[in-house]
Formats: sequence, structure tokens, C-alpha cells
Amino acid sequence: MSTPLLVRALRGEPVERPPVWFMRQAGRSLPEYRALRSSRSLLQLARAPELTAEATMQPVRRHGVDAAILFSDIVVPLVGVGVELEIRPGLGPVIAKPIRTASDVRRLRPLCPEEDLPEVAEAVGLLRTELEVPLIGFAGGPFTLASYLIEGGPSKTQATTRAMMFGQPALFCELLERLAGIAAASLRAQVQAGAAAVQVFESWIGSLSRPQYEQYVAGPTRALFDQLTDLDVPRVLFGVGTGHLLEAMAATGPDAIGLDWRTSVADARERLGPGIALQGNLDPAALLAPWPVTEREARAVLVDAPETGYIFNLGHGVLPSTPPETLGRLVELVHGHKLEAIA
Amino acid sequence: MSTPLLVRALRGEPVERPPVWFMRQAGRSLPEYRALRSSRSLLQLARAPELTAEATMQPVRRHGVDAAILFSDIVVPLVGVGVELEIRPGLGPVIAKPIRTASDVRRLRPLCPEEDLPEVAEAVGLLRTELEVPLIGFAGGPFTLASYLIEGGPSKTQATTRAMMFGQPALFCELLERLAGIAAASLRAQVQAGAAAVQVFESWIGSLSRPQYEQYVAGPTRALFDQLTDLDVPRVLFGVGTGHLLEAMAATGPDAIGLDWRTSVADARERLGPGIALQGNLDPAALLAPWPVTEREARAVLVDAPETGYIFNLGHGVLPSTPPETLGRLVELVHGHKLEAIA
Repeated sequence: MSTPLLVRALRGEPVERPPVWFMRQAGRSLPEYRALRSSRSLLQLARAPELTAEATMQPVRRHGVDAAILFSDIVVPLVGVGVELEIRPGLGPVIAKPIRTASDVRRLRPLCPEEDLPEVAEAVGLLRTELEVPLIGFAGGPFTLASYLIEGGPSKTQATTRAMMFGQPALFCELLERLAGIAAASLRAQVQAGAAAVQVFESWIGSLSRPQYEQYVAGPTRALFDQLTDLDVPRVLFGVGTGHLLEAMAATGPDAIGLDWRTSVADARERLGPGIALQGNLDPAALLAPWPVTEREARAVLVDAPETGYIFNLGHGVLPSTPPETLGRLVELVHGHKLEAIA
Repeated sequence: MSTPLLVRALRGEPVERPPVWFMRQAGRSLPEYRALRSSRSLLQLARAPELTAEATMQPVRRHGVDAAILFSDIVVPLVGVGVELEIRPGLGPVIAKPIRTASDVRRLRPLCPEEDLPEVAEAVGLLRTELEVPLIGFAGGPFTLASYLIEGGPSKTQATTRAMMFGQPALFCELLERLAGIAAASLRAQVQAGAAAVQVFESWIGSLSRPQYEQYVAGPTRALFDQLTDLDVPRVLFGVGTGHLLEAMAATGPDAIGLDWRTSVADARERLGPGIALQGNLDPAALLAPWPVTEREARAVLVDAPETGYIFNLGHGVLPSTPPETLGRLVELVHGHKLEAIA
């Protein structure tokens, strides 16, 4: 079997056109997903292999994207190691007992995927036989997972998280190392079951200054990537509002960086050089506008994109109110992109 | 009367040491404020002149800061023009009828402070006689006010706001122009009643890319500042996560830029030059750590600070859980700063 387009692009190899997929392509923007969810919680869906596989395949069927991403949530591995939490609709994960002390941190045990989350590998196995495009495995990054655990839920500026970072740096470091281990174990299991690439969603690192990121988060992130090097799959690191962190993120060892809509692909390429692939970064809000506006904004992203080492995506997850037709038209636009350029 | 230290620093004039004040210094970090609030809503407090004056003076009395900032909320002028809203504890402003259509926008009438909000000028008048430090007037920036009105409340990424920006750009522009007018009228009334400087809290502009900011927000912001030039008081523009926007913000015409904790003062000075003052930018989360950590972080900010055109502050508002003693010690630290350097 030839190497999939997505994997070649992530490796910086020659491609005929950029691959395209969307963060949160499996989810509430699709009526068929909302039907699947109607009588179930997100966590129920993410822990039932057939349903996980179905949710994962829906956007591939409907939009013709070049990659699937496992339907799940970054907190699933935390559930696997026994953290009590629920995902509240419209809010996000809420942790029953937020982590604040050394004994809280030390209760966070390593993840044994085959024991703790066998359903994830099972879902990936099902997808391996059914999908015609590569599957992206994913996990939350150590800082982002820590922020949910420390804050007790979603937070606007992660101030309580940074307060622990300042006030209990050794404990904070231990927490991030544990979480990096959990994320790495989860990703390893997904790759061993068939995922062809992985993405680390380190969504909220943008709340850190660069010195803070380098001092407290870069190390555990590097440890995470190091634990996956032998698997020979490309690894993407994504965060929101990370224009000030790109070089430090790149230095942790990923094969690709996911950009949000505030850093242009051209700027990122200039800063990071051609040795690392770039993914992004159409503003998801542009998909709520009439198609000519969406198209104009998408073309502005594509014009900036390098010929190799580039994957088209949004700058953050698909918004639930996005018309599915718009996602389909975007896929068509990207699929026609290089062909047009050559003709 | 000689020109206050704060005003000289904001104008880039020689100072004996940097002035210090804290965003949200009047508020929940103070027990005396919590007592004042116990039986009243924030809006009740902000609309009762004696109580507003009391809340404004509390941090000056307790901490010895070099400036007071009028106790209020950026949505108060919206209440003044008849927008139905409440401020929910722990959440923020919630708008009864979010703005989505042209007729919604056109219902937003100009603010006539003497008719709509006479209590604000009255509070400033009381403070003028009682305060020994300058009073900073404030207003929300047009994008930030628009984001509350469009989203219907606080939002993590302001996607609905940007969706209107993309989908209905002319209407979005009209909304921001109206809001800039409301903010300017509110600030003018505060200055005429005695405020010695003003700060525009354009908190959420960091969610915009630089081209988005320049295309949609810079114009109304410049209009806001232009409407205040004849008043001869220094004007500060503050936003969160604006490392990628600083030059564009500076180009709208403020006398000073407020930095959050992710852009170092030294970097900002290098990028913007000495012609504009800088304010900031200790991470508010560092104030929750033991004092030696807070002190270390504060000294790191001060070491970076230029000799003129600099005002010490936090990089965002004081967190409610901040120990008041820490704020007092920080004031002492800054007050001793230049003296030490000269000695």
C-alpha cells in the first residue's frame, strides 16, 4: 500500500495537492452525529467501539476529507485512570475533585491502555478495516490536561493552573510528567491498533508566556514525543493562540505544528523553516459566513501555503453551527487547488 | 498642583520611579469590598455614587497605589443606553437579547452621559475632592463590547462575533462605530468630571488575527481616541493576548499600551519604540504563589522596564483569591525600585 497523502504531507514529502481534514469534523456540525448522540453522552459514545467508529467515519463519508480523526475527547484517558469527571454539554469537562495537592497528583496513576481503555484500540481496529483514508490518533497535551484537572473544568485564562506552576513548581512538573506519560501511552495504543499519525491537542498553552512554556511545559512535551519516536508515525502539536510560542513548540520534537487563525502559514514557515510541516488555519468563524466569504478566506490561506509540508485545516475545531455543506465545499476547493495551479 | 506621577509616566516624561496600580484593584480581592458588595449587585454598586467612590478608594487606602481607577464595569454605558443585561457572579455580563440583526444594531442609541448615567460623573466628582492620587476613567473597547452584545455573554474565542464580522461586515462596522461613540462619550464625561487619564479595556481583541484587527477594529478604535484628543489626558489601550497586534494597536493613537503577561516589556519597547508608554505586566497568577516567587517575578518585570514611559501593573486583572497583603508588598517593592537603583 502506498503512503497516504496525509502522511506524506506531514513528513514534508512531495504531494500532488495538500490533504485536508478538519479538527472536530466528527461532531455536532453533522445531523447524523447528533442522531447518534441523541440518547447518549459523549463519554458513552467515546467508549463504545462501534459507535466511536461510526462517529469517526461520518465526516469521511459526507465530506470526503483526506483523513479521519478518532472520535473521542482528550479527557478519555483520564477517565481510564480513574479520574471522576463528566462532560457537561455546552461547558466541557468538569472534574469532581480538582487536583491541588501532592497526594492528588500522586493518585494519578499511569495508563495501561489494554486494561484501562481496551475499547479505544477496538474502535481503531474496526476503523482500520473500514476506512480508506488514514486515521489520526489523538491525545491532550500535558498542560491542557493539567489545566482541566487543576481548574476543575474549562477556564478562560488558566490562572489557577499557572498559580500552581508558580507556587508548587516541582509538583506541577510531576503532574505534567505523569500526564505526558498517560498521553503517550494512549497514543501508542492507538498507533499500535492502526492509527497512521497522531495529534497532541495542547489547546491552552497559549495562556503561557514563552519563558513559562519553555521552563515548565516544553520538557514534558518533549518527553511525550520522545516516547513515540520508535513508532514511525508523524506527530502533530496543536495549540490555540500560540503565535508567541511556535519556535519553542517546534523544539519539543513534533513533525508538524497546527496553527490557529492568528498566525499566517507564511509567517510560520518563515519562522520555523521547511523542516517542520504546518497544518491550518482557516478561521472557523469564516465558515458561518456566506460561501463567497468562506471561499475568499480559504483561498487566502491556500495562497500562503507552501508546496510541501502543508495540510489544510481550520485554525480551531469546527463550530457546532457550521453548515455541513460548507465543509463539503471546502474539501472540494482544496482538492481542486493544486490541479488548478498546474493547469 | 504638579502633574501626577502616573500622568507623567503615561506621557513619557521624566519620573523618579515607576507608578504602580493594578487592574481590578477595586474588587473581590479586598474584604472591605466584599462587605460593601454583600447585599448589593455589582451594577447597584456601580450606579450609587457614594458606594462607587468608596469601592474606588478602598485599594488606594489599603495598598497606597499611585492611581485609582473608577469602580465600574465596561457594560455600565450599555445599561445607560437601555441594553437589558445582568452581571452573573462568576460568569460575567449576560445580555437579554443578543445583537444579531441590523435592527438590533440600530436600536443601540448614542450615550448622553448627563441624562443616561449622571451617577458616574457624580461619583467622579466625589472622588476628585477625596482622592490624593489621579483617577483613571475607563470604558470597554468597541470589539469587546460588541463581543458581549453579539455572543450574549462571555465567550472563550468570540467565534460568533467573528462570524458576524465575516458575514455582515458593514453591520459589524456600524456596531463598532456606535460602540466607539458610546465609549468615547462615557470617557469624556469621566474626564470632564475629573478623571486624569483613561484606559480602554479592549480585552478580547486577542482573538483576532492582525489583518482582522486592522480591517475591522482599528478604525473604530482610532475614532474613539480621536474623539478624546482635545481633552489632553493620556489614553491607555489594553487587551489580553495581543502580542501579535501591538503595532496595529499603537497605530490607533493611544498614549500607552497595556501589556498582558505574555509579551515582555522589553520586547514591546523594542517593537514600538519610546514614543508610546507601556504598562504591565506581572502575571496575576504569580500573586497566588508564596511571596519570594511573587517578588522574583515582579523584579523580572522591573528589570525589563524602561526608565521613562513605564507604569507597573499586572498583565490582567487582580484575581479574586489574591491575598491583599501581596498587593501591598508589591506596591512597596515598586515604590522602592528606582531609589534602590540610584542608591
